[in-house]
Amino acid sequence: MFSPVYLDHNATTAVDPAVLEAMLPWFDQRYGNASSRHEYGRAARAAVDQARQQVAAATGAHPTEIVFTSGGSEANNLFIKGSAATFKPGTLAVGALEHPCVMRPAEQLAKQGWMLRKLAVDAQGRIDVADFTAAIQSKPRLVSVMLANNETGTVQDIPSLAGPAEAAGACFHTDAVQALGKMPLDFRALNRAGVRAMTVSSHKIYGPKGAAALIVDKRVELQPLIAGGGHERGLRSGTENVPAIVGFGVACELAVRALAELPASLRVLQAQLEKGLHALGATIFASAAERLPNTTYFAFADIDGETLVGKLDRAGFAVASGAACSSANPEPSHVLAAMGIAPEVARGAVRVSLGRGNSNKQIDDFLQVLAQTVQQLKQMTAVAI
Amino acid sequence: MFSPVYLDHNATTAVDPAVLEAMLPWFDQRYGNASSRHEYGRAARAAVDQARQQVAAATGAHPTEIVFTSGGSEANNLFIKGSAATFKPGTLAVGALEHPCVMRPAEQLAKQGWMLRKLAVDAQGRIDVADFTAAIQSKPRLVSVMLANNETGTVQDIPSLAGPAEAAGACFHTDAVQALGKMPLDFRALNRAGVRAMTVSSHKIYGPKGAAALIVDKRVELQPLIAGGGHERGLRSGTENVPAIVGFGVACELAVRALAELPASLRVLQAQLEKGLHALGATIFASAAERLPNTTYFAFADIDGETLVGKLDRAGFAVASGAACSSANPEPSHVLAAMGIAPEVARGAVRVSLGRGNSNKQIDDFLQVLAQTVQQLKQMTAVAI
Repeated sequence: MFSPVYLDHNATTAVDPAVLEAMLPWFDQRYGNASSRHEYGRAARAAVDQARQQVAAATGAHPTEIVFTSGGSEANNLFIKGSAATFKPGTLAVGALEHPCVMRPAEQLAKQGWMLRKLAVDAQGRIDVADFTAAIQSKPRLVSVMLANNETGTVQDIPSLAGPAEAAGACFHTDAVQALGKMPLDFRALNRAGVRAMTVSSHKIYGPKGAAALIVDKRVELQPLIAGGGHERGLRSGTENVPAIVGFGVACELAVRALAELPASLRVLQAQLEKGLHALGATIFASAAERLPNTTYFAFADIDGETLVGKLDRAGFAVASGAACSSANPEPSHVLAAMGIAPEVARGAVRVSLGRGNSNKQIDDFLQVLAQTVQQLKQMTAVAI
Repeated sequence: MFSPVYLDHNATTAVDPAVLEAMLPWFDQRYGNASSRHEYGRAARAAVDQARQQVAAATGAHPTEIVFTSGGSEANNLFIKGSAATFKPGTLAVGALEHPCVMRPAEQLAKQGWMLRKLAVDAQGRIDVADFTAAIQSKPRLVSVMLANNETGTVQDIPSLAGPAEAAGACFHTDAVQALGKMPLDFRALNRAGVRAMTVSSHKIYGPKGAAALIVDKRVELQPLIAGGGHERGLRSGTENVPAIVGFGVACELAVRALAELPASLRVLQAQLEKGLHALGATIFASAAERLPNTTYFAFADIDGETLVGKLDRAGFAVASGAACSSANPEPSHVLAAMGIAPEVARGAVRVSLGRGNSNKQIDDFLQVLAQTVQQLKQMTAVAI
């Protein structure tokens, strides 16, 4: 019954069976509050500590740099607002194609006296060097640029941005939610290059929803977004979500192990998909940029993305249109707008994001159904005209 | 192995087997992002909607009044900070024995120009009427008083406070995290009496960690703490934690059903426990107040609470000392200090909080071990002197 082919792994992923198994005892057997001092509590605390080490190992961070949060949106808000709260209002620079959970808090700060500067990107979604250099001259206190974009998959050259930002005195953050598990990630190396904070999340890497981390260099001052009992070194209060954190830890361990094979096999499927898309006359966005091995964002002329996604859904393929994470809000993608893509083209945007379970056969089937669907829709459009 | 008797249900509870069963498919089968428009996404959205109805039904709220958050601490911070952000700084009044996740954000506001007024309590932990009346005359914009205290179990007469607060133009919030599931809760009735917002949480009622709700009257203006994709009517962005929300919904349904029996049976165990404690010469805090049927907070003269809890733990009984939720921070309880309990007495504080699984036999065993342990510790103290 419930069996469409899932091609929307940038939105969320299925929890890995090994992850779920590791989580289970923490729901109904070892259910203590990690702040409690009795045996149940100590067991929970040890599990959280172990997960902290697993997340640190997977990201090249030190365990004491990990601040667990309930999700990537919270971690990004914690960096943007929590860090801004330690400064007098100044300039804040964010990439023009940041996720809304960076963009919206930045806009909230702009209403509180901060000067918000959106960093221009080129047609491939890469930060424009000239605009970035100019922005840095305005001595921003905070800079946030995502490592890999959720829509296009464009990978930024973060060290080349973080270095000049650091030299100009800025605190540099990168949202690495889409990068983790799809490419090697090394906070220590990024940190040496000038990155002070990085966001990673569990549910994009076959871990559960409800766990993520802000990784922070200890030189970064932060006010907690959620204040209270003083959990997470006072940076994030609230009873630890032990099962989710345990699952995140295991998912991180599995993700690192999978790096030896997964990106290469995703790259093969991506090439197969994109060869087929080209043959059908699709435009592939950011195709000249270095991209994640699983993400392909495309459009067909004169075909509405929402309509195409709906038809593909009914035909048994789950893909995303426009910006998936905020599709409560169906405006044309701000990412494509920033890349200079015309609105009438952007309205056609459909994202396929591949994952572990996907196969060669599924891509073939998808391309076949897509070809039929596009032909149908083109005929309908022709009739309508 | 791992089998102490669990007497710390105010810290957290085991997930009910029926709750866990309801959650399971949402991890690895129906794992969609509730904002996705394909079949996986729609299924997740429907599950979140159903949970919203279950939480609303259990709390006497309307589904559109429920804002899901990652926990009670987040929900309390969302009310305090999110509501304050819509006003110019003014006066904020909170009960002197609020949980740190109300107290700390209130203190953060105090650093930003707000006047923080802590409402005095009497020796039983009830808000002092004279002090409250005086506080209301200072026209606070926000008032927050918890419905039932996590340490003492003291139940406040919320309608008698909310009415005058509303008449004075204040926006009144109550933290009902410890009340839900232990006594009937009716947001509609509280709302008519002047309550504008209420916090409830999943993991205190045999639901999973990672889900809670701020229930808000639509007249309350709120700025989101976590801004981004616009989830939860723009009040709380971030991918919905579908399994946890589903579990919270089911836990709410079970909690309401259990109200017919559970409080009465807890009351019987509580009476048995307190009879035994009196016989041993313990002081029971707030014993003259209306209290939750599961919470008993006590101390023995000249016996340190931490030490007693440690000995009981080794003897197979999991209880809490001082403030359990913030026992990262082992200061003497601010709740007892507010009640005028001397620090040397407060240092002896031990909390037993009963739950579903506890039995008559367990209380008997606990009292027996407690008697031996107290005697041992008294002898050691005598020797030390």
